Amino acid sequence: MAIIVQKYGGSSVADAEKIQNVADRLVRAKEQGNSVVAVVSAMGKTTDGLIELANQVSTRPNRREMDSLLSTGEIVTATLLTMALRSARHRAISLTGAQAGIKTDASFNRARITDISPKRINEELERGRIVIVAGFQGITEAMDVTTLGRGGSDTTAVGLAIALGADRCEIYTDVEGVYTADPRIVPEARKLEGIDYEEMLESASVGAKVMHSRAVELGWVYNMPILVASSFSDNAGTLIHGGASMEIRNKVSGIAHDPNIAKITVVGVPDQPGIASSIFEPLANAGVSVDSIVQNASVNRITDLTFTIASNDVDNTMQIIKPVAESIGAKECVSDSTLGKVSVIGAGMQTGPGYASRMFRALSDEEINVELISTSEIRITCIIDEEKVPQAVRALHKAFELEAE
Amino acid sequence: MAIIVQKYGGSSVADAEKIQNVADRLVRAKEQGNSVVAVVSAMGKTTDGLIELANQVSTRPNRREMDSLLSTGEIVTATLLTMALRSARHRAISLTGAQAGIKTDASFNRARITDISPKRINEELERGRIVIVAGFQGITEAMDVTTLGRGGSDTTAVGLAIALGADRCEIYTDVEGVYTADPRIVPEARKLEGIDYEEMLESASVGAKVMHSRAVELGWVYNMPILVASSFSDNAGTLIHGGASMEIRNKVSGIAHDPNIAKITVVGVPDQPGIASSIFEPLANAGVSVDSIVQNASVNRITDLTFTIASNDVDNTMQIIKPVAESIGAKECVSDSTLGKVSVIGAGMQTGPGYASRMFRALSDEEINVELISTSEIRITCIIDEEKVPQAVRALHKAFELEAE
Repeated sequence: MAIIVQKYGGSSVADAEKIQNVADRLVRAKEQGNSVVAVVSAMGKTTDGLIELANQVSTRPNRREMDSLLSTGEIVTATLLTMALRSARHRAISLTGAQAGIKTDASFNRARITDISPKRINEELERGRIVIVAGFQGITEAMDVTTLGRGGSDTTAVGLAIALGADRCEIYTDVEGVYTADPRIVPEARKLEGIDYEEMLESASVGAKVMHSRAVELGWVYNMPILVASSFSDNAGTLIHGGASMEIRNKVSGIAHDPNIAKITVVGVPDQPGIASSIFEPLANAGVSVDSIVQNASVNRITDLTFTIASNDVDNTMQIIKPVAESIGAKECVSDSTLGKVSVIGAGMQTGPGYASRMFRALSDEEINVELISTSEIRITCIIDEEKVPQAVRALHKAFELEAE
Repeated sequence: MAIIVQKYGGSSVADAEKIQNVADRLVRAKEQGNSVVAVVSAMGKTTDGLIELANQVSTRPNRREMDSLLSTGEIVTATLLTMALRSARHRAISLTGAQAGIKTDASFNRARITDISPKRINEELERGRIVIVAGFQGITEAMDVTTLGRGGSDTTAVGLAIALGADRCEIYTDVEGVYTADPRIVPEARKLEGIDYEEMLESASVGAKVMHSRAVELGWVYNMPILVASSFSDNAGTLIHGGASMEIRNKVSGIAHDPNIAKITVVGVPDQPGIASSIFEPLANAGVSVDSIVQNASVNRITDLTFTIASNDVDNTMQIIKPVAESIGAKECVSDSTLGKVSVIGAGMQTGPGYASRMFRALSDEEINVELISTSEIRITCIIDEEKVPQAVRALHKAFELEAE
């Protein structure tokens, strides 16, 4: 019997009716002859509610306690979904992350899975039960509860699919799949039938928030096919898979964007070895993800260092960076939170002909100024004025003829 | 260093401010030189909210799932209280029932503690931490989460106090202690300085709902002193202890009452051996607690069997009892939910002079009709009209001169 792992996000289990809908979907998957494991997130805004409670008792809630607190949200969903199944006379059981054998390291709030012991899950599957696992959480060797970071239920699902030798991992969410661009901005955007791990990863990390990028990475490493589809329809989703054939490569697969980008410039930095790490190490330790980094040409051994981050990290970053800048003798730090980014994603971009120039032409035709550029093997990203992001996405979608199959 | 176990009920941790208040109390206990363990219940009406959710997805929620669901309420409180302590720079850690080593049998919804392994708690205490334990829950050998039944946090606290060799267990709640009668009914009611386990047990089981009777039993067996006091004041509470001296025995300690009693009569039962067990066994299995049982004198080998239960068990009981009554050839089952009970509690009642007659006289002076009588070594209980309960409690409090020290 094939094992299928399905994951349902917070909006798919937001109330009793939606939980009932998920129960029906699981029964259908089971009746098609599969062994079914479901991973669930906390209901709707539950996690936000718990964080709000924590903030009422503490300005800086302890990380270990936070994980134990937040883990309850997914347990609630898992038990309710199981009750719904059992109430309709289907065999089912809920498991917490610990009970499901999900071992992690002790990095609270962003733990990494070290091992999955699927003994209990396998036993329950053999008893003919649908197994509902509370996502997003695991347990350390010392029996402390951890969470995998926000969106970590995707990682739980892909990890379980791998550990159980599942045929594939299905991520059900409130979108129908991965599109060539955000359909709310580009009405002609097309849903992709397939996308390879690397392209998906670039899409995810530049703002097409369909699924958690760590989960895609994990799928990539173990070559686990991941289907992204809607829990509210039966339409075919997008399959994230292990690389396309030669013919399909060298093609732009989509336009990603993120309107919430900030630029920080450390002005007048002495151009010495080790300066960059003295700035970026404390940020990494604080969990601030730094995107593009640009260093101006040095004049008299003095330079400016510019980098981009998510806008909601600005306050935290400035607090960390100011004393560092002072200690290394920099002149000042300035921030600009009014930026956004657009990216062209596609396998083999860097080696392909003229993608970058076509991108810049399309933007300049719209009189959109480019502040910063960064590239990877399969991505070209431009930092632009936040307000121009929708216009840029539409122009690029057209320039790369993505509306056509 | 003395170990103290304190338990805080749902109303004592109902919001962020009250949690802060509990944190302050724990710090005070610690600063007095104690090793402090706190057991907490779910915040305010959290448990009711979770039950409501369960009822939305299932008419008969599965018991195992229910336990996993409800256990989250206490975990939330434990983590929030710990955050509050840490935020004020005090060392603290929260533990779930499983982490605290509370092992139970697999009777979901009303599990019994089989063993407590306090290794982790002792380690944390040695590190100078205040240990906050999520009450009401444990874990089976198969790693399934269980709950100890409603009010089970009291049992957690007493159990931990015993396992840790604590000096005493302190139960903090929204009342100031154990009174000679309910002060809302009898304004002259006195708070007792001390009461012995047996008297407390009778008080608890007849409706003075100050604490969970299983917890008192447990304290009694292991001779663990239990203090009941208010979390909202510093007034002295009531100490439940291991038996009074000779002089204090043979004295009425209080009047207990419960306005929610129902009487069930099985009419026309053939008077044969084994009939009673065929009626009461299925009730016991369904968790219905039967109080007094009265069998009328048999006429022509036909009798009536009357017993009392809590009013909210009536529907459940009638459903169970009707087919049984039919199968044994009884004529019919009738129920009356308009009853209540009043009890006179005191050590050595049965051997003492004239307690019963004084009780009946006091009730008849008020023209209160007694429907049923039951007694134990330290209790005399009368079942009366529900509406007459307050009047009866006042009359008995006066008749036994409880207003005087």
